[in-house]
Amino acid sequence: MDRITSVKNPTVQRLRSLKDRKGRVETGLFLVEGVVMIEEAKKCGLVMREMLSEEPKDGAIWVTREVMQAVCDTKSPQGVCAAFEMPDRSRAPLGDRLVALDGVQDPGNVGTILRTADAAGLTGALLGDGCADAYSPKVMRSAMGSGFRLPFIAVSPLSETLRTLKEAGYAIYVSSLQGEDFYSRRRPENGKFVLVIGSEAHGVSEEVASTATDLVKLPMRGGAESLNAAVAAGIMMYEIMRETAE
Amino acid sequence: MDRITSVKNPTVQRLRSLKDRKGRVETGLFLVEGVVMIEEAKKCGLVMREMLSEEPKDGAIWVTREVMQAVCDTKSPQGVCAAFEMPDRSRAPLGDRLVALDGVQDPGNVGTILRTADAAGLTGALLGDGCADAYSPKVMRSAMGSGFRLPFIAVSPLSETLRTLKEAGYAIYVSSLQGEDFYSRRRPENGKFVLVIGSEAHGVSEEVASTATDLVKLPMRGGAESLNAAVAAGIMMYEIMRETAE
Repeated sequence: MDRITSVKNPTVQRLRSLKDRKGRVETGLFLVEGVVMIEEAKKCGLVMREMLSEEPKDGAIWVTREVMQAVCDTKSPQGVCAAFEMPDRSRAPLGDRLVALDGVQDPGNVGTILRTADAAGLTGALLGDGCADAYSPKVMRSAMGSGFRLPFIAVSPLSETLRTLKEAGYAIYVSSLQGEDFYSRRRPENGKFVLVIGSEAHGVSEEVASTATDLVKLPMRGGAESLNAAVAAGIMMYEIMRETAE
Repeated sequence: MDRITSVKNPTVQRLRSLKDRKGRVETGLFLVEGVVMIEEAKKCGLVMREMLSEEPKDGAIWVTREVMQAVCDTKSPQGVCAAFEMPDRSRAPLGDRLVALDGVQDPGNVGTILRTADAAGLTGALLGDGCADAYSPKVMRSAMGSGFRLPFIAVSPLSETLRTLKEAGYAIYVSSLQGEDFYSRRRPENGKFVLVIGSEAHGVSEEVASTATDLVKLPMRGGAESLNAAVAAGIMMYEIMRETAE
């Protein structure tokens, strides 16, 4: 097989388009960089469509370093990347222990929250309007493989989904600077909950806050007024799961 | 007073040097950007030496946008910045509830951990070799003012300081992938502890691990193998303080 040297090659062009949400929506694909992450994605049952490699390799399209750099999001690509199908999770069950993000814009925060939710033992995530796209390269990098494992769906508007879940018996814990002490919140009898995290700059929207069974806030014992969104989410998810395990 | 238009001006040159550790060590100063952070630093008792402003302003050196951009670390500076003295904390008490960082390189993680430690109610931080410099602009930005409030010192080697603290009766909780369940660790009778967080890529050094009274690890209930360093630190700091408050 010939080596592709031009970034204008149609396959290369298509894979380059996966950097943007538009390209991902049009193709139904997203990009995974590096051998470790590609293996992890396969292990999680995701379907690989095309692989690029800087070295000749079975089943991979052989490309130059220049082409690899044009396709990848990182400054120093790892020599191999692949396009995977975005799974259709719209009908898959997300489970009883959920985290929901309301306008969390920073891709690092979104990825880190998916990673922590997976580690804590949550069963799924809801991404509302204004969140960084979970299939963007930066989110997937921060999620460290948890983006392949933890089921998540984008919902719009988030408040409607939360209202439906509340009617189904879920506790809706909404993180808010106006909230009551997180550690004193009511416990759901059935173990079903959604923990809602707001945007870094503005917190949760009024619409979303109105769906809460409990508005919650972690205690600030020192002089800090707030926490990083991913850290706050991590503390609360681990605390809820610690209590459940008791 | 005249407006400074040249980035070659000696004062401007000196303030520009504060971007690097070398410049900060030579001058004993560090840079704070934006009105809110400058007010916060003053409120915390830090001593301001020079202020630059894009608008003519009492007590400030009037500069052009170009000069401001040359001095500041951010892409879109907020129109005012100031050099503050780095306080001498070598003899100040750090208190009984400490977090220690062993080679945490990412400035965002170091700053976020200082911010969370302040919020959780810890009393101080130890920064070992290989950590991002706490006075770097990126760390200070992530710390959101907690870098002014929470006492911290750089120590080398960290293991020696930890050994001294252990002899003084502190529990030394060292976060490690080889650790036991964090929630089952022994509780210190006197409430004194140091929580030690290792580097993102390699965890804690053997030297540091050997000082532990307890090697600890948060449970991984899903498929994730590890947590982001700042998130793990946050979960553990809040859990220790929750227990203490009970």
